[in-house]
Amino acid sequence: MDTRRAESFSDGVFAVAITVLVFNLLAIGHGPLSYRLLLDAWPQYAAYVVSFLTIGIMWLNHHTMLSLVSRVDRITLVLNTFLLMGVVAVPFPTALVADHLTADAPAGGRVAAVLYGLVLIAISIAFSVMWMYLAAHQESLGATAIRAPRQATLRFSAGLIGYVVGTLVAAFWSSGVALAIYALIAIYYLFEHLPGPQGAEPPGSASQPDCSVGEPG
Amino acid sequence: MDTRRAESFSDGVFAVAITVLVFNLLAIGHGPLSYRLLLDAWPQYAAYVVSFLTIGIMWLNHHTMLSLVSRVDRITLVLNTFLLMGVVAVPFPTALVADHLTADAPAGGRVAAVLYGLVLIAISIAFSVMWMYLAAHQESLGATAIRAPRQATLRFSAGLIGYVVGTLVAAFWSSGVALAIYALIAIYYLFEHLPGPQGAEPPGSASQPDCSVGEPG
Amino acid sequence: MDTRRAESFSDGVFAVAITVLVFNLLAIGHGPLSYRLLLDAWPQYAAYVVSFLTIGIMWLNHHTMLSLVSRVDRITLVLNTFLLMGVVAVPFPTALVADHLTADAPAGGRVAAVLYGLVLIAISIAFSVMWMYLAAHQESLGATAIRAPRQATLRFSAGLIGYVVGTLVAAFWSSGVALAIYALIAIYYLFEHLPGPQGAEPPGSASQPDCSVGEPG
Amino acid sequence: MDTRRAESFSDGVFAVAITVLVFNLLAIGHGPLSYRLLLDAWPQYAAYVVSFLTIGIMWLNHHTMLSLVSRVDRITLVLNTFLLMGVVAVPFPTALVADHLTADAPAGGRVAAVLYGLVLIAISIAFSVMWMYLAAHQESLGATAIRAPRQATLRFSAGLIGYVVGTLVAAFWSSGVALAIYALIAIYYLFEHLPGPQGAEPPGSASQPDCSVGEPG
Repeated sequence: MDTRRAESFSDGVFAVAITVLVFNLLAIGHGPLSYRLLLDAWPQYAAYVVSFLTIGIMWLNHHTMLSLVSRVDRITLVLNTFLLMGVVAVPFPTALVADHLTADAPAGGRVAAVLYGLVLIAISIAFSVMWMYLAAHQESLGATAIRAPRQATLRFSAGLIGYVVGTLVAAFWSSGVALAIYALIAIYYLFEHLPGPQGAEPPGSASQPDCSVGEPG
Repeated sequence: MDTRRAESFSDGVFAVAITVLVFNLLAIGHGPLSYRLLLDAWPQYAAYVVSFLTIGIMWLNHHTMLSLVSRVDRITLVLNTFLLMGVVAVPFPTALVADHLTADAPAGGRVAAVLYGLVLIAISIAFSVMWMYLAAHQESLGATAIRAPRQATLRFSAGLIGYVVGTLVAAFWSSGVALAIYALIAIYYLFEHLPGPQGAEPPGSASQPDCSVGEPG
Repeated sequence: MDTRRAESFSDGVFAVAITVLVFNLLAIGHGPLSYRLLLDAWPQYAAYVVSFLTIGIMWLNHHTMLSLVSRVDRITLVLNTFLLMGVVAVPFPTALVADHLTADAPAGGRVAAVLYGLVLIAISIAFSVMWMYLAAHQESLGATAIRAPRQATLRFSAGLIGYVVGTLVAAFWSSGVALAIYALIAIYYLFEHLPGPQGAEPPGSASQPDCSVGEPG
Repeated sequence: MDTRRAESFSDGVFAVAITVLVFNLLAIGHGPLSYRLLLDAWPQYAAYVVSFLTIGIMWLNHHTMLSLVSRVDRITLVLNTFLLMGVVAVPFPTALVADHLTADAPAGGRVAAVLYGLVLIAISIAFSVMWMYLAAHQESLGATAIRAPRQATLRFSAGLIGYVVGTLVAAFWSSGVALAIYALIAIYYLFEHLPGPQGAEPPGSASQPDCSVGEPG
């Protein structure tokens, strides 16, 4: 199977999951509205921004990962389903963290931040497994060269370790600090990333005119 | 009509339907939050996982089915609409099963699991009808070869029989056992599947460079 | 601009709008659950089926309409935005009809069915305007031949007249009969439709190998 | 990276964000239904139309902007994520404006209209930054010619100034007048727009047969 429809379905799931985050905001502002009330809802905005960046960056990495291969097999699609199962769940702990971050009971906020961390850890593991599978089967999946898999594995591990640290901080110390750690990991991934098609020169890279550029003759 | 836009629309519907499942999770955790409360919501997670895998696998089979033909006619699109009508409904019985699985009244859980089974049976029948239509019209739909339709019909029937058994178990015995049966059918379909393009070698398979690989000259 | 991204965006909007219909079902079954309670919710299922078929068929006609041209201009995209504005609104009167069809006050059901009809009339008018614009500018939009525009206009008008009749029936007589009329129009459009690419042979039709089939050399 | 999957993801996000607007309508009509009640909900319809047109036009401009380049780099994708973060948030102030426009306390409506304006200003800035980045890196991004960047910058600024004026009107005078200003800006952008591919003739424009037209030989 070529990667086109797997990408199309995954893009759709990422797009809907990232948009579901706005439903947490839609719960704000019932009753009399004031600037004070909107400002007091800052944990909702913080959680929205962190989760939006996190899902956005996961989409970028997913994009890069699938662009390295030119077809996918059944096992890749099954692994992809488990990966998406984690991504779709992200709005759930996001809502819990936003609702409980400034609640009277700090224990509730920490429980929410632990769940948030566990979901991100699960997604990181799913990414690592899928990456290792693609790297191990790159010939049969039509990748001309997935370079430096060790380097990439290190980068994935960096995120995973960060999420574990954040979860431990949430469990034993502070939900606010944990959320800041999750935000820092998202910002780290904005700049650090998988070696992409530029490095690996898969089919369809910039040096060859691809279909969307269209000089067929 | 070529299959591209039918796939694009179907992928969108599958992607949204699978993401709607998270709305059931979003109802968890209002009020004071604790690890206990999150753990007690396990039927929500179980229902989420089973329905996510079920819709994910239905997408895989839909993907495989449409990849066997190179164009679709009006009747295929109408059958596809009925199939999608069932897929979009899945979050409804999922929510009912999750809400009533551990409720005080076990009868409510069984009613929910029966409805869940009936929706899955309806989708299975829609899949079978669409598959039989494609197999019967494969010449006009541009499939080079849909092999072994009898084998595929058997595989579809296996799922259908499983869903009927699950529904009967739900009706007369236990909603938990029924949900376990639905989960087992999803796991079965992770490994057993339609004969795909690898076997049938339709246009656009790996042996021919397809558009996304792009060697146009 | 080529039609690809307009189709991609439109497909996404149609896919989300059709899936939003399940949210009406998600409101069923709170409180003790029984077969009786599920059966009594039949207006919800009827409204779901009618609106699902209606949006599904609108997608089919939209698909056919855009497949007749090979590029779109600014005005087409603006008309398309107004068309989608109507399609996205469909779940709103659907929910009202479902909630009020069997309510104690029949006047409420009739009000809901009138709103439903008005939304469908607005969408029909948007379709007709867009169709007339495409037919009038077919040379500049790269359609080789949009045949029989008069015939197609008749077919559009048939639906429009049906919706007007349904709305009048809702206003002065019965919401149930009006819903049946909307259902019949959807079934009519399942079988009657625009002259498609098969008749008009636009670029990319089955007789020429298109990009997704991929024999570029 | 080619632009295809960035467009696909962005289209999905725009499509879901624009469809989320219907959830504001779904809150109408609980309790006894009458024509009066539906008419009294006019701020909901006004907010729906303004936000639908606004997101629709943002999609058009996004479409035009990405069609000018033939590939995107990491920074473009990061800027795109921030742009989408604003677009997805639009249903939130839309709901607040609709709920508070005719409420007893006019201060609440003004607060809502200020928030609406701030979100639109943030999106305008994100658009301007992304446009300036693309214009500055057009060689490396494969644009043959992005003409008249100054003219386009002027057009973007016109929208930005309009939103600032609307926000100030909301803060110190009237939420209704502010909403009218936001509507006028949307209508302005329906007719005024970026210099598109017709003018700039990037690869894949109408003069060259592109992939979807498909004359590969």
